[in-house]
Amino acid sequence: MSTSLTDSDAAAKAAVLVEALPYIQRWQDRIVVVKYGGNALAGAVADHDALASFASDIVLLRSVGIRPVVVHGGGPQIGALLGRLGIGTEFVRGLRVTDAETLDVVRMVLLGQVNPDLVAAINVHGPLAVGLSGADSRLLTTRTVDPDLGFVGEVSVVNPTVLEQLLAQRLVPVVATIGADPAGQAHNVNADTAAGAIAEALGAEKLIYLTDVEGLRRDVDDPASVLSTVTAGDLVSLLAGGAVTEGMVPKVEACLRAVRGGVGQAHILDGRVAHALLLEVFTDEGVGTMITA
Amino acid sequence: MSTSLTDSDAAAKAAVLVEALPYIQRWQDRIVVVKYGGNALAGAVADHDALASFASDIVLLRSVGIRPVVVHGGGPQIGALLGRLGIGTEFVRGLRVTDAETLDVVRMVLLGQVNPDLVAAINVHGPLAVGLSGADSRLLTTRTVDPDLGFVGEVSVVNPTVLEQLLAQRLVPVVATIGADPAGQAHNVNADTAAGAIAEALGAEKLIYLTDVEGLRRDVDDPASVLSTVTAGDLVSLLAGGAVTEGMVPKVEACLRAVRGGVGQAHILDGRVAHALLLEVFTDEGVGTMITA
Amino acid sequence: MSTSLTDSDAAAKAAVLVEALPYIQRWQDRIVVVKYGGNALAGAVADHDALASFASDIVLLRSVGIRPVVVHGGGPQIGALLGRLGIGTEFVRGLRVTDAETLDVVRMVLLGQVNPDLVAAINVHGPLAVGLSGADSRLLTTRTVDPDLGFVGEVSVVNPTVLEQLLAQRLVPVVATIGADPAGQAHNVNADTAAGAIAEALGAEKLIYLTDVEGLRRDVDDPASVLSTVTAGDLVSLLAGGAVTEGMVPKVEACLRAVRGGVGQAHILDGRVAHALLLEVFTDEGVGTMITA
Amino acid sequence: MSTSLTDSDAAAKAAVLVEALPYIQRWQDRIVVVKYGGNALAGAVADHDALASFASDIVLLRSVGIRPVVVHGGGPQIGALLGRLGIGTEFVRGLRVTDAETLDVVRMVLLGQVNPDLVAAINVHGPLAVGLSGADSRLLTTRTVDPDLGFVGEVSVVNPTVLEQLLAQRLVPVVATIGADPAGQAHNVNADTAAGAIAEALGAEKLIYLTDVEGLRRDVDDPASVLSTVTAGDLVSLLAGGAVTEGMVPKVEACLRAVRGGVGQAHILDGRVAHALLLEVFTDEGVGTMITA
Amino acid sequence: MSTSLTDSDAAAKAAVLVEALPYIQRWQDRIVVVKYGGNALAGAVADHDALASFASDIVLLRSVGIRPVVVHGGGPQIGALLGRLGIGTEFVRGLRVTDAETLDVVRMVLLGQVNPDLVAAINVHGPLAVGLSGADSRLLTTRTVDPDLGFVGEVSVVNPTVLEQLLAQRLVPVVATIGADPAGQAHNVNADTAAGAIAEALGAEKLIYLTDVEGLRRDVDDPASVLSTVTAGDLVSLLAGGAVTEGMVPKVEACLRAVRGGVGQAHILDGRVAHALLLEVFTDEGVGTMITA
Amino acid sequence: MSTSLTDSDAAAKAAVLVEALPYIQRWQDRIVVVKYGGNALAGAVADHDALASFASDIVLLRSVGIRPVVVHGGGPQIGALLGRLGIGTEFVRGLRVTDAETLDVVRMVLLGQVNPDLVAAINVHGPLAVGLSGADSRLLTTRTVDPDLGFVGEVSVVNPTVLEQLLAQRLVPVVATIGADPAGQAHNVNADTAAGAIAEALGAEKLIYLTDVEGLRRDVDDPASVLSTVTAGDLVSLLAGGAVTEGMVPKVEACLRAVRGGVGQAHILDGRVAHALLLEVFTDEGVGTMITA
Repeated sequence: MSTSLTDSDAAAKAAVLVEALPYIQRWQDRIVVVKYGGNALAGAVADHDALASFASDIVLLRSVGIRPVVVHGGGPQIGALLGRLGIGTEFVRGLRVTDAETLDVVRMVLLGQVNPDLVAAINVHGPLAVGLSGADSRLLTTRTVDPDLGFVGEVSVVNPTVLEQLLAQRLVPVVATIGADPAGQAHNVNADTAAGAIAEALGAEKLIYLTDVEGLRRDVDDPASVLSTVTAGDLVSLLAGGAVTEGMVPKVEACLRAVRGGVGQAHILDGRVAHALLLEVFTDEGVGTMITA
Repeated sequence: MSTSLTDSDAAAKAAVLVEALPYIQRWQDRIVVVKYGGNALAGAVADHDALASFASDIVLLRSVGIRPVVVHGGGPQIGALLGRLGIGTEFVRGLRVTDAETLDVVRMVLLGQVNPDLVAAINVHGPLAVGLSGADSRLLTTRTVDPDLGFVGEVSVVNPTVLEQLLAQRLVPVVATIGADPAGQAHNVNADTAAGAIAEALGAEKLIYLTDVEGLRRDVDDPASVLSTVTAGDLVSLLAGGAVTEGMVPKVEACLRAVRGGVGQAHILDGRVAHALLLEVFTDEGVGTMITA
Repeated sequence: MSTSLTDSDAAAKAAVLVEALPYIQRWQDRIVVVKYGGNALAGAVADHDALASFASDIVLLRSVGIRPVVVHGGGPQIGALLGRLGIGTEFVRGLRVTDAETLDVVRMVLLGQVNPDLVAAINVHGPLAVGLSGADSRLLTTRTVDPDLGFVGEVSVVNPTVLEQLLAQRLVPVVATIGADPAGQAHNVNADTAAGAIAEALGAEKLIYLTDVEGLRRDVDDPASVLSTVTAGDLVSLLAGGAVTEGMVPKVEACLRAVRGGVGQAHILDGRVAHALLLEVFTDEGVGTMITA
Repeated sequence: MSTSLTDSDAAAKAAVLVEALPYIQRWQDRIVVVKYGGNALAGAVADHDALASFASDIVLLRSVGIRPVVVHGGGPQIGALLGRLGIGTEFVRGLRVTDAETLDVVRMVLLGQVNPDLVAAINVHGPLAVGLSGADSRLLTTRTVDPDLGFVGEVSVVNPTVLEQLLAQRLVPVVATIGADPAGQAHNVNADTAAGAIAEALGAEKLIYLTDVEGLRRDVDDPASVLSTVTAGDLVSLLAGGAVTEGMVPKVEACLRAVRGGVGQAHILDGRVAHALLLEVFTDEGVGTMITA
Repeated sequence: MSTSLTDSDAAAKAAVLVEALPYIQRWQDRIVVVKYGGNALAGAVADHDALASFASDIVLLRSVGIRPVVVHGGGPQIGALLGRLGIGTEFVRGLRVTDAETLDVVRMVLLGQVNPDLVAAINVHGPLAVGLSGADSRLLTTRTVDPDLGFVGEVSVVNPTVLEQLLAQRLVPVVATIGADPAGQAHNVNADTAAGAIAEALGAEKLIYLTDVEGLRRDVDDPASVLSTVTAGDLVSLLAGGAVTEGMVPKVEACLRAVRGGVGQAHILDGRVAHALLLEVFTDEGVGTMITA
Repeated sequence: MSTSLTDSDAAAKAAVLVEALPYIQRWQDRIVVVKYGGNALAGAVADHDALASFASDIVLLRSVGIRPVVVHGGGPQIGALLGRLGIGTEFVRGLRVTDAETLDVVRMVLLGQVNPDLVAAINVHGPLAVGLSGADSRLLTTRTVDPDLGFVGEVSVVNPTVLEQLLAQRLVPVVATIGADPAGQAHNVNADTAAGAIAEALGAEKLIYLTDVEGLRRDVDDPASVLSTVTAGDLVSLLAGGAVTEGMVPKVEACLRAVRGGVGQAHILDGRVAHALLLEVFTDEGVGTMITA
């Protein structure tokens, strides 16, 4: 706070601070579930600055009284280790067939590599983040999706108690979406879907997907048709009309379920924009697409 | 959050938000005592927008977890009512000689005009501010300064309990500096000095004087010599050397006492700069002069 | 506790203490809203002993576990300052037409004169009372009664939170009935009506009006017809039959609304009887009129 | 509260209430240990009204926020049952030689007769009193005084936890002074001494002995020499000078120990005066003798 | 923990500990009401080891997080003292006709002999047990059963507050079943029935009767027909068919009422088996008869 | 609880339960840190029953009010994956030289394989265990041991807050000993040493090493010289005398530091004995060696 501001700099800075005021007040103490991952994560981990920038945004959200929960997958990283170990892999309807050997790799990558990297990036700012698997205190109880897929599970019950306890201490949970069935068998769970289920169970205010696209388009082929807001009803029509590309389907379906289950707003953001999270949460204009009930 | 940001706007906004992060985190839950008044207040009350802007800054501080306390005087307004009632007034060593009739006017102006105007301006944003006099639950116990000055008091004991209770409820106390001696006799108290005593009793992190000057100057005649920071030790030399103008003396002395009594930092800010409070608290550069122990 | 009692003195004292027992037990922790004012207050302020006696009674109520709330107006004092400032005033249907200049005077008198006098009188006994305006943390939200009356408001919403917090700390709130509309515009509010609304919002056990009459009369012209108790139903008949004099109408209507809204008992007491409050609350016989649902 | 008071009655009643005010405020939440017993108790149990009057006084103390603890013995009642069972008894230095058979009788009388009678008398006013023996949760751990005396114990450790828990719930503990040694062997304990030890362990404000004498006399033979107050130092002289009669010695010694151990005041009251407790606690003059450090 | 175990001892010990695991987990924090008494008690008091063994079992239950409440009568001991005092006694329908003199004896025996013996036996292990009568803080409010029976009462209201407070402090209440009617008159209450009413009022998990029989028999004359479990429905048939012997009727009826009133399980155990309580609560097999809804 | 016990079975079972009583009472609410691992773990993971038995013992400790913390390493498992990936490894003074590639493997094995296996085994019994890395909320802050060893760290600060929070919720933390330096760089930490540091920081009552030896020997070559207890002082002599084999040195040193730092007792147990944990904690004899200050 040593050298003085020019008047116009001061006015511009003050304007941003004043704009952020109603949002800071509004989101105080609210839970925001952020799904970070897929390709965005792959890029970020490769690019240390992007990961650090994401972590710093999460810490900022927390600093102003928001309670962020980070959920992540790690598809590209899993693929890399499988390749390195010479284990083949196969996808059925977008889901990785997961035998015992593959499950071991999935667990090692998500719990032993991606999750601690995210925790470490956040904890540079202080003793803030705690990594969790969906098996911890039975956060995610799962059931087998399809015997042909092996150890792929879908969430049957969410027990958000441990998340609530950590949030009450203002800690930031970072969740790897490995679940377990009632007998303790680990399952590989789709992270997009799990993020939505967690948001709903926590009564989150926002569910945010950080992706590598600009948002949902009304016309899948027209980059200019990105939607800034869309209601659940309209979204159903878009899904039916084929306007949602394949990789976005689980995200869009999770958004729909979440806003119908009480989550205030769901967002598909462009994680490639620097500080997209902050701009979404604290400014009047948005980045990406907002889905409301 | 409807229309989208241009990339450069986004980057600029994000930069301000990111700069504010460490400060928001740092001042979380800390108490900041803001002395608003004298001429700044006179201008602000005349100018509704300035008052509203001040109020909005106080609400912003509170929104991000800071606990502001507003302390005010009202010299010009007292002078106006005395004039209107045809009551003469006299100053001795900068203090208004206060007979019983004058004291009645002081109480009516501070408690019945300035204080409720400040409370109203803040409460446009919600049920946030509560007006207090120094006599409420014996917040400020006073003793007579000098029999020749009449009912002018200086603070002998601060009982901050009611302030602490209101702050614990995240309310914003707005204090008019009327005190009372142990027998219940009201006293007119210098607001600059009272603000310092309150800051010390609360263990405040910051004590901020909003004034109508740019800051303290090393050379009283050189506008380019405004100090951005000064230690208590240096300030004693400046006072001894006559570099502090008359009206600033009680503020500077209160700052000295406060930082020596445990207040983290004291500030002389230029209240004429829009949102000076926000810029001081949330940006790397400052406005005005910061005094540290 | 030094010299000893004669036996008959002892027996008499013991009898009073024993009589008070069931009432002390019964009113423990209950809220009692006391409207002090109009002419009673004018007399008391002129007569320092009467004010001190009232304050001491309030402190006694509090000492034995009752939670008193004092509500006051200040009509005569307002009239005096208006006269001194040469401002004319007009009444329509018993309400003072309040232009901006008059409102300034009303605020100065209530908040800057009557309220601090009451607070000071109570705080002689300790750090007990806290003065409040109806604008503090939006205690009394008002709406315009009639554009022709200017800034005269009626209570639309009571937000008793700040009162409850102070009561929880065993402090004594002293409320001046200035309200504010949602935009922050101050309003002059009838204190009798406001006292009733506050009693109802707090779920008070008793609402007590300290007046300068002996109580309600069954026959307005017969001093011997003072009623010691009356039900809400009977009171409606008395009102319809014209047995309530003009100045008592807002009190009586507020009593009716209060007992119908859950307040246990409403009282019209003769404030000219020394310690009328204590005698009402702690003895088998009463002073004045008690209204029950 | 139906019929009205005459003016002079009103003034007299108000005067008593006003006199009681500072005491009620002063003793709020303080613990007062009342030793009831010996001959006073014998009379009271015989005379149901005296017992009811004592119980009502205890309830009044509690009603106004005081925390009374009742401690009792029961010598005359023990003597009666021993006689009825044809068991002889012998006293050595004022203490009853207590063999196993006698101890059984002591326990039956204190725990099965005197204690429940006191509890019942208080509980006519509500679910207020809880009877305890000194063996309950090891309230009074004892050691043998002298093998020749049999099962007569003196208090070695007081564990006031259960008393504190009941007091925190605003219940009234009624303690029979049967103790137990660490091995669980019951002991007959002098109730005067035990009351003092309990008062000290609780940090009581007052320790009151209700007796059948007017108070301590400066000259044991001169009824006009009753002392209204005496310091610990003077009391030592009186004891040394033989001015304390035999039965009063344990009381006086317990008073001395208690005021030296932090109890504010100890009192020897004349339990034959109706409502002596109330008059002592709530009036300016006293009944009996007050001992201070 | 000094000398080492043989392998087979170790395995056997580990097996018992492992078997107890699910029960310890299951009964954690649950309330278990144990009726101890009648003849079992008479035997135990005569036989110090049996009483100590019972006390140690209660302490064990408490040690592992169970909240035991002990309820007792004392018929044989009452008979003994009546005999010693030469007071005749008469039974009508299994209930002792209780005149004032008999009531005095009942109180002395239960409160002054049996209750403190039980408290002492438990408190050998620490400051754990607190003796209570049903009159303490109006735990058991009673009404007269039949004027011809004198002061025999049946429970009309249970006020379990004091029990809940003691249990919250992990203390062990030991209740003698003397009750009092609203006027404070003591009543002799059947302990079996009172135990059931207390269990129901506390929402106990288990109600256990320690008796001197092996359990309920399907055929009253066939020792081999002891039932290990029975439902409430079947029990009604057994009662109707005369398969329950006279002394067991109040126990069985209390069990029925309790399980229908929400108590999880009621048990008739053979108190003559060492540590029957522990074996019932912590092992897969049982001792005696379990009644479920 | 259906079929009945034979009398001798009952007596034997009761005896074990009664023996366990004082220990259950004594360890209530105490923290016990259990280091599980090295070869014991390797065996257990290979042998599902051994892992399940260990998990069940941990759950039993928790069931009776003990607060267990599990700390683990995973040397053999790390070696296996390194081998599978064809990465060579080297040990210097018993510590694995850890380059970046090796560190990735260490993290994947400990966080992605061993830790979730332990969590899963415990969570078969309920939502009880939560897996943690030393980087979570900066549980273990580390510094580099020796640049030549690469990313091998030693604990410089333990921040036990997150453990305390989980223990307060009666959850079971399972800690993998990956730490991080202040810059967020992950470090491989010796699990024996980390377990000791955690026990000390938590003020644990016991620190237990489950190993594959019978205990410490006075004479390293004499199997009959296993010590059942040893003081810190004697242990220093044994270390100096070379009586501690190489792999045991870090355990023994950690035990010494822990008991000197306030941990009540440290234990070297033979994890190959079924339920060694239970036998150690709940029986009079021990298994293995106990070290006390």
